[in-house]
Amino acid sequence: MPPVPRDARPGRVLLTGASGFIGRHALAPLLAAGHEVHALGSAPPSDSDEGDVRWHRVDLLDAGATDSFVARLRPELLLHLAWDVTPGRFWTAPGNVRWVEASLALMRAFVDAGGRRAVLAGTCAEYDWQALAAGESVRCLEGLTPLVPRTLYGACKHATHLVTAGLAAEQGVELAWGRIFHLYGPGEQPGRLVPAIARPLLAGESVAASDGAQVRDFSHVRDVADGFVALLDSHVQGAVNVASGEGVTVREVVELIAAETGGRELIRWGEIERAPGEPETLVAEVTRLHEEVGFKPAIGLAEGLRESVEFWRAAG
Amino acid sequence: MPPVPRDARPGRVLLTGASGFIGRHALAPLLAAGHEVHALGSAPPSDSDEGDVRWHRVDLLDAGATDSFVARLRPELLLHLAWDVTPGRFWTAPGNVRWVEASLALMRAFVDAGGRRAVLAGTCAEYDWQALAAGESVRCLEGLTPLVPRTLYGACKHATHLVTAGLAAEQGVELAWGRIFHLYGPGEQPGRLVPAIARPLLAGESVAASDGAQVRDFSHVRDVADGFVALLDSHVQGAVNVASGEGVTVREVVELIAAETGGRELIRWGEIERAPGEPETLVAEVTRLHEEVGFKPAIGLAEGLRESVEFWRAAG
Repeated sequence: MPPVPRDARPGRVLLTGASGFIGRHALAPLLAAGHEVHALGSAPPSDSDEGDVRWHRVDLLDAGATDSFVARLRPELLLHLAWDVTPGRFWTAPGNVRWVEASLALMRAFVDAGGRRAVLAGTCAEYDWQALAAGESVRCLEGLTPLVPRTLYGACKHATHLVTAGLAAEQGVELAWGRIFHLYGPGEQPGRLVPAIARPLLAGESVAASDGAQVRDFSHVRDVADGFVALLDSHVQGAVNVASGEGVTVREVVELIAAETGGRELIRWGEIERAPGEPETLVAEVTRLHEEVGFKPAIGLAEGLRESVEFWRAAG
Repeated sequence: MPPVPRDARPGRVLLTGASGFIGRHALAPLLAAGHEVHALGSAPPSDSDEGDVRWHRVDLLDAGATDSFVARLRPELLLHLAWDVTPGRFWTAPGNVRWVEASLALMRAFVDAGGRRAVLAGTCAEYDWQALAAGESVRCLEGLTPLVPRTLYGACKHATHLVTAGLAAEQGVELAWGRIFHLYGPGEQPGRLVPAIARPLLAGESVAASDGAQVRDFSHVRDVADGFVALLDSHVQGAVNVASGEGVTVREVVELIAAETGGRELIRWGEIERAPGEPETLVAEVTRLHEEVGFKPAIGLAEGLRESVEFWRAAG
């Protein structure tokens, strides 16, 4: 398909999760695209240089508060990134259910307030990992790879897409759903892969790792934030993988980290069991992102990991 | 698989949608099975002979009210039938989204209050009608026919199943999901097929019909209510088609009605266009219902339609 130009006109954007890992990197590209940016997040970053962002405090888990806020603001565009993704817990946490409810209430309010285009955050965990494990699909392709989530988190995200897309279609609102694969970047939560490896190695301590043979699709958080803003500024609808499209083993990632930190011999390979049910290979097909949205990630893995290590070195 | 005995012990049941088409027929079999029945519905039927039913008034669209009611009642079993299914509107109505939210809040409250088994109402509209139309599947088979709803109603029901089943599995609560096909029976809403045909014919008026060639799976509402209670009283989990398993053309149904009412010549065949996207054939595979739940429908189509026509004749 021919590339769709980023021709959507700027407007009043409501960004949720604006203090989160992706959200805080979405502020600058949203402003750069000319949008009037209204941000919901747990806290405006104190060192923010995004002076034009208007911050609001609303508890999205309170449907009534969401509704009256959105009715007053009347955003034309919605970029909904908020969700509880506490590392180690979010795959199974019952709190996922409340984020489905919150997302549906938000989307209802947005539609009722005259919104014209919404982009929401999905996940690679919506795809059928058992089909991937069985080799029935090589890469996750929107519209083709079966959607059979095997985790509560994946089920809740997929359910949110089903309902919001159905509502948007009935109400004449555009909706796109960006599926996120594996993320890394400066400032991520300490329980995630890169800091879990980098911080002990920087301290000269040994660290347990899995066998590292699983193949994953890692994206730098700024690329993903830029990709979401590009998706918001397009007219592409439906599911779009917002990912690198490049498979890399976890072992390669860990070794790239160790190349920056030193201490490669401190890695205790194979000591962490992999979670049952995870596929060997989980890599996105990114043709829609490249050709329809017209967006390609810019940050190479070695360069991005170097930046992450520097962040954790500076953090001490 | 061997039949599962209906060995679940009676308990405190919360029935939602108890004034609805299926729900009001679920009261008697629930009481007969020895349950303590707590009913939520728009109104207790004034002519009810179900004297042991305890009726409550709770607005399920108010998550806070639902939560405090369920926390007080502490039901062991949940049979959730409530939803807005106004004929002619419910396939596309935005209100479906609020019923997803209401159902998730109800399920969260039930789990938090120590519930042990929930049965919720799904729909044949969760199955991929395009795959059925393309002849890829002959009958709708749980766990095999792809789940790609093509309507907002189907999307909302399927999303509710994804989330509630995921939550139940994580929290150690049993959950079954009964998929309803086509229903008829005395007292159904006047906009539905049987009264839409029977009432004009009883009045000697002509009536428009589709070409009638589509094959559907019709169940009497009492059979479906009994099937849901049997499902509640089993330990079967996951999706179960609660249907007849017998395909019949809409023309056959209309002609059976006309055989009771007279006025077969008043039917203007082919005057109503069928909705685009509906499959030619939509029939349930019912092996799970028969063999695992141990339930078979009892009311034949001719007998059931005769009862329906008598209802509308008496209603005038």
